[in-house]
Amino acid sequence: MISQKMIPLMQNNSAIRAMFEEGNRQAELYGRENVYDFSLGNPNVPAPEEVKKAIIDVLNEEDSCFVHGYMANAGYPDTRKAIADSLNRRFHREYRPDQLIMTVGAASALNVLLKCILDPGDEVVTYAPYFVEYKNYVRNYDGVLKEVKTDFSDFQPDPAALAGAITEKTKALIINTPNNPTGVVYSAEKLAAIGAVIAEKEKEYGHTILTISDEPYRELAYDGVEVPWVPDLIPHTAVIYSYSKSLSLPGERIGWILLPDEIPEHADLISAAAIATRVSGAVNAPSLIQRALKRCVDARTDVAAYDANRELLYNGLTEMGYSCIKPQGAFYLFVKAPGGDDKAFCEFCKQYHLLLVPGTSFAGPGYVRISYCVSNDMIRRSLPAFRKVAEAYHLV
Amino acid sequence: MISQKMIPLMQNNSAIRAMFEEGNRQAELYGRENVYDFSLGNPNVPAPEEVKKAIIDVLNEEDSCFVHGYMANAGYPDTRKAIADSLNRRFHREYRPDQLIMTVGAASALNVLLKCILDPGDEVVTYAPYFVEYKNYVRNYDGVLKEVKTDFSDFQPDPAALAGAITEKTKALIINTPNNPTGVVYSAEKLAAIGAVIAEKEKEYGHTILTISDEPYRELAYDGVEVPWVPDLIPHTAVIYSYSKSLSLPGERIGWILLPDEIPEHADLISAAAIATRVSGAVNAPSLIQRALKRCVDARTDVAAYDANRELLYNGLTEMGYSCIKPQGAFYLFVKAPGGDDKAFCEFCKQYHLLLVPGTSFAGPGYVRISYCVSNDMIRRSLPAFRKVAEAYHLV
Repeated sequence: MISQKMIPLMQNNSAIRAMFEEGNRQAELYGRENVYDFSLGNPNVPAPEEVKKAIIDVLNEEDSCFVHGYMANAGYPDTRKAIADSLNRRFHREYRPDQLIMTVGAASALNVLLKCILDPGDEVVTYAPYFVEYKNYVRNYDGVLKEVKTDFSDFQPDPAALAGAITEKTKALIINTPNNPTGVVYSAEKLAAIGAVIAEKEKEYGHTILTISDEPYRELAYDGVEVPWVPDLIPHTAVIYSYSKSLSLPGERIGWILLPDEIPEHADLISAAAIATRVSGAVNAPSLIQRALKRCVDARTDVAAYDANRELLYNGLTEMGYSCIKPQGAFYLFVKAPGGDDKAFCEFCKQYHLLLVPGTSFAGPGYVRISYCVSNDMIRRSLPAFRKVAEAYHLV
Repeated sequence: MISQKMIPLMQNNSAIRAMFEEGNRQAELYGRENVYDFSLGNPNVPAPEEVKKAIIDVLNEEDSCFVHGYMANAGYPDTRKAIADSLNRRFHREYRPDQLIMTVGAASALNVLLKCILDPGDEVVTYAPYFVEYKNYVRNYDGVLKEVKTDFSDFQPDPAALAGAITEKTKALIINTPNNPTGVVYSAEKLAAIGAVIAEKEKEYGHTILTISDEPYRELAYDGVEVPWVPDLIPHTAVIYSYSKSLSLPGERIGWILLPDEIPEHADLISAAAIATRVSGAVNAPSLIQRALKRCVDARTDVAAYDANRELLYNGLTEMGYSCIKPQGAFYLFVKAPGGDDKAFCEFCKQYHLLLVPGTSFAGPGYVRISYCVSNDMIRRSLPAFRKVAEAYHLV
């Protein structure tokens, strides 16, 4: 009964499921507190108090039929206005509410945009390493995802490599900064160079190449680094955002798409995105959270907690001889797998109750992703296990 | 830049948008209180107090990272258990939480199931009149929606007509009872006869034909009528539910899919549905509302308010000479268009500030849909306008 397109997804899923079951198996055998699960990107810092207050205030102050009702597929106009105003304050632009479409998180936002633009066989380019679901999202609309490697010495995107990957069939480029899984913030210089490559290729092929800037980690940046506003550097950019990390609301599925006027056919794209939201079955982004968001649009999660985790884990691991660049965003370390084989290394780590994800799952073989959106205490308790693994691999 | 598949959707959308703009235009000209908008299916009865209390209690009593966090793609196990237990109490079954997948409303549930089973060219049958989005949902996965007419004297489904529509390519039948747009509750006799037709055709073609019972209006039934539990009458049935109407939460996007053991390959379908939820970008149904649902799973909207609207509008219109069966569910009247041309009739009604939807939009030409999920007062105030239209059409 299962469709041909679903079957490979079901086969691949078993690897993730196996990891999940391994965690549960070990927790049962050794106690949950003795298993160091660094595999998930689920925030451990609670949502700011403002979010809770905003939700309760909405329930007490606004009309139930309005709060929980249908609205335009693009979302409540006043929520979109609050978001546009916030962006304008931060990035000195003049965005309007009608340029924003509220979505069921960033994942749904990506799907909506790809549904709007992809015909079968169309190509989408992205820089590796990348969030593995991009491939599935592009396949949903019978497109083809093409990978371009970043420079693995610093995981910055290589503009020249991009130029070689774009063909007549390229409809879009997806970039993700701060990046999952590397934590790297793409530099303004590299982004400007990418903008020049795109402009040149648009001229060569005579059609728009839409850059989709997937930014769920925008607010998670450290060392005072500035995350560049991509539309300033790549003119034809749609920005995709999610409150999953900035407000620790991943389960609530709330995000948006911004389609600035600089994008040719932006009016058609805005209409299409609202329709795609409807037709794909989402209909609209969840309403209560939209209402609440209007009241706490500038609230932020406690980034300092993640930063403390980053320092503890980065310093701990590098002192033991692990090799890793120090990332300035997101909540991941992308560590060189001792021995070179990331899958074998992750398998080896399991016996020390360390659960990591092979970089191969992110098109970054030879590395492992370690999520530090966990308790500082767990990181501290895990360090002796990392040390034993380092000793076994003769890192020190 | 827009994909070929999206273009026709954008052209069709303009009709709905035109209706929306007509409402706004008239409200501006004549005052909102003098425009009788019967076009939308947006509940006007507020969510029960239990829902508000449940949401606030969850926020005050449960851990923020858990309440707003990622969970298994199928949803929180305890919420699914509460739902399974509630179904078991009502329908004397032994459903388990693992047979339920929480979804972003019924529309997303339908998309998830269709994604799981449709290969390009596969056919899905449904009874007309039907919710027009079904066609778009099936097209999302390159399937073909085939319509079978109900008996327009009572809008009950005709089992013999179904037998003629099923081919080797038929993967599913979608039924919707209580029905949008007719308000009719399909009878147990007709459903049992449909079950027999499906069984015969499954034997003839050697594969399962999945019945998808789309039931957002299940709790909205009047005159003490019992809405049959479809899996009792059609064995290979997946049930799709939404709290949009039963709890007046359409904007929250919360529903589920039930995949009982009677369906062959049910285990594969359950896995596939969870993966389709993830890959389509929904990832999971919104988390806070899932948590709240566990605490108010048996709460219900005030059906008596809709019933009072039904009586007032049905009696008012039939006394004026309009022809309409008296439906026993949902919140719609499906009224014969005087003159026979539903589009012309709706156009004519506009000058009396009556906004109705032509039945053609539901594959039910010659009728108009009148949504009575509006204030009782608006119905009362609208009756003189309906009377003027009746006089113009010489109904009395």
